[in-house]
Amino acid sequence: MKVVVADNCGFCPGVKNAINMAEQILGEKNDVYSLGPIIHNKDVVDRLASSGLKTVSDINEIESGTVLIRSHGAAPEQIEVLEQKGLAIVDATCVLVKRVQKIAESLQNEGYRVVVIGDKNHPEVEAVVGCAKDVVVIAGRKDLHLLAGSTKLGVICQTTQSPEYFNEMLSEIVKADFSELKIINTLCKEAINRQKAAVELCKKVDIMFVLGGLESANTRKLAELCKQYNNQTFHLQNWGECDTNTFFDKKAVGVTAGASTPEWIITEFVENLKSFKQRK
Amino acid sequence: MKVVVADNCGFCPGVKNAINMAEQILGEKNDVYSLGPIIHNKDVVDRLASSGLKTVSDINEIESGTVLIRSHGAAPEQIEVLEQKGLAIVDATCVLVKRVQKIAESLQNEGYRVVVIGDKNHPEVEAVVGCAKDVVVIAGRKDLHLLAGSTKLGVICQTTQSPEYFNEMLSEIVKADFSELKIINTLCKEAINRQKAAVELCKKVDIMFVLGGLESANTRKLAELCKQYNNQTFHLQNWGECDTNTFFDKKAVGVTAGASTPEWIITEFVENLKSFKQRK
Repeated sequence: MKVVVADNCGFCPGVKNAINMAEQILGEKNDVYSLGPIIHNKDVVDRLASSGLKTVSDINEIESGTVLIRSHGAAPEQIEVLEQKGLAIVDATCVLVKRVQKIAESLQNEGYRVVVIGDKNHPEVEAVVGCAKDVVVIAGRKDLHLLAGSTKLGVICQTTQSPEYFNEMLSEIVKADFSELKIINTLCKEAINRQKAAVELCKKVDIMFVLGGLESANTRKLAELCKQYNNQTFHLQNWGECDTNTFFDKKAVGVTAGASTPEWIITEFVENLKSFKQRK
Repeated sequence: MKVVVADNCGFCPGVKNAINMAEQILGEKNDVYSLGPIIHNKDVVDRLASSGLKTVSDINEIESGTVLIRSHGAAPEQIEVLEQKGLAIVDATCVLVKRVQKIAESLQNEGYRVVVIGDKNHPEVEAVVGCAKDVVVIAGRKDLHLLAGSTKLGVICQTTQSPEYFNEMLSEIVKADFSELKIINTLCKEAINRQKAAVELCKKVDIMFVLGGLESANTRKLAELCKQYNNQTFHLQNWGECDTNTFFDKKAVGVTAGASTPEWIITEFVENLKSFKQRK
């Protein structure tokens, strides 16, 4: 059995930075909180928790100490509450996500109704939505009716969506009865390269594994894209979730991983795959 | 035979204004020139010619006197040459066309590559193109490759195109690999209402006549749209071009006219249609 790992796979700079910041603060301070999981990977979050990072879902759970803003960012309103509480804030928001937030603010200030193409329940999108007052999330064709009556639309996109999906939604949005439409491409190039490499690989193998958190938007998008070209695509968190029957009769196996999947999860998975081959 | 005339048909405010200005100047001055036909209607141009308006295609043909800038506008470079020649200039450019020119300039100044959706040989488009340095005309899908390598695109449209065509081209343009895309809807609302009324009418009649200059972009667009819903659609300049055999056996006849078609052409056509019925 041949095992091939996709190019551009594993931690992206934004995730690396968030983890580095967490580790540094945990080495310096007590009472360090993360408002929601710092990245969408359970294994990493568990490891940081054992080093002392307390992940909370509600600001009210934090009374004192340091709050780490996770890679997906936080809405200005949330930051304000943290400041009012007198908490120390360490911002680990990905620079590209920060850019989307600033663009949302600018579009709002320029008089545009802000349109975010993305998943409205994803923390990145929730934070971006919090940066503008007049804002609409388009999570699919079913939401397009929300654009009716808008004249100036300023469109941005969740960083981890695919160019194909971005284009598909834009092709629909341009049909709105607008006077002015400003579209800023806020897709993450790193994520696009990862998607391209994964799609290329999945076409050449008998079975494709996409490793990463189940909540991770970029991992889910990778799995969704690979599934289009190889229906033997499986999204798993780690080797522990792998059913070896799935690749028992396969000759070539592909592996890719989301931006928040640590190297050791990928290495463990690949080594187990290879040793499985030896056992055959 | 029932004859129905479409709502919103005949002269638009821009054309009315250009003709009024021409008549006024001809009443006040000698040596009045128009750089290209003042509007795209031969009957009107002939009538103004008999009142003294000299239509020329080349600036070099004008030595002295007054130059009327036609409803479709002129490029800044042309205006400059006229000024250098010391000629008096009277600007009859349609206000909506003037707006497109100003938007092209603004987009250029904001760092966008200007994209004009329209017919590159039409004088309106030629004048708009003259307002920007880095500019591309998209006359159809075949021209989309010209957008390759552009990062900031500023898109506008020839005023007389239809919303359907504008949307069709935008759906393709959004697939370009851009970082920023600003689209300003520069379609003429008057032309859109005219198109809607014509399409509505052509569906209800056995035969549809679209009256107007053969060079007139808005008339051609009307005929093109009606043809999609009624293949018995004929684009004629006036009653003189009408072959009465075409409607000999028809029960309901529809008539519409472009923005540069004078009332008397429509009236003459409709009255001839009605009197033909009486002769039967």
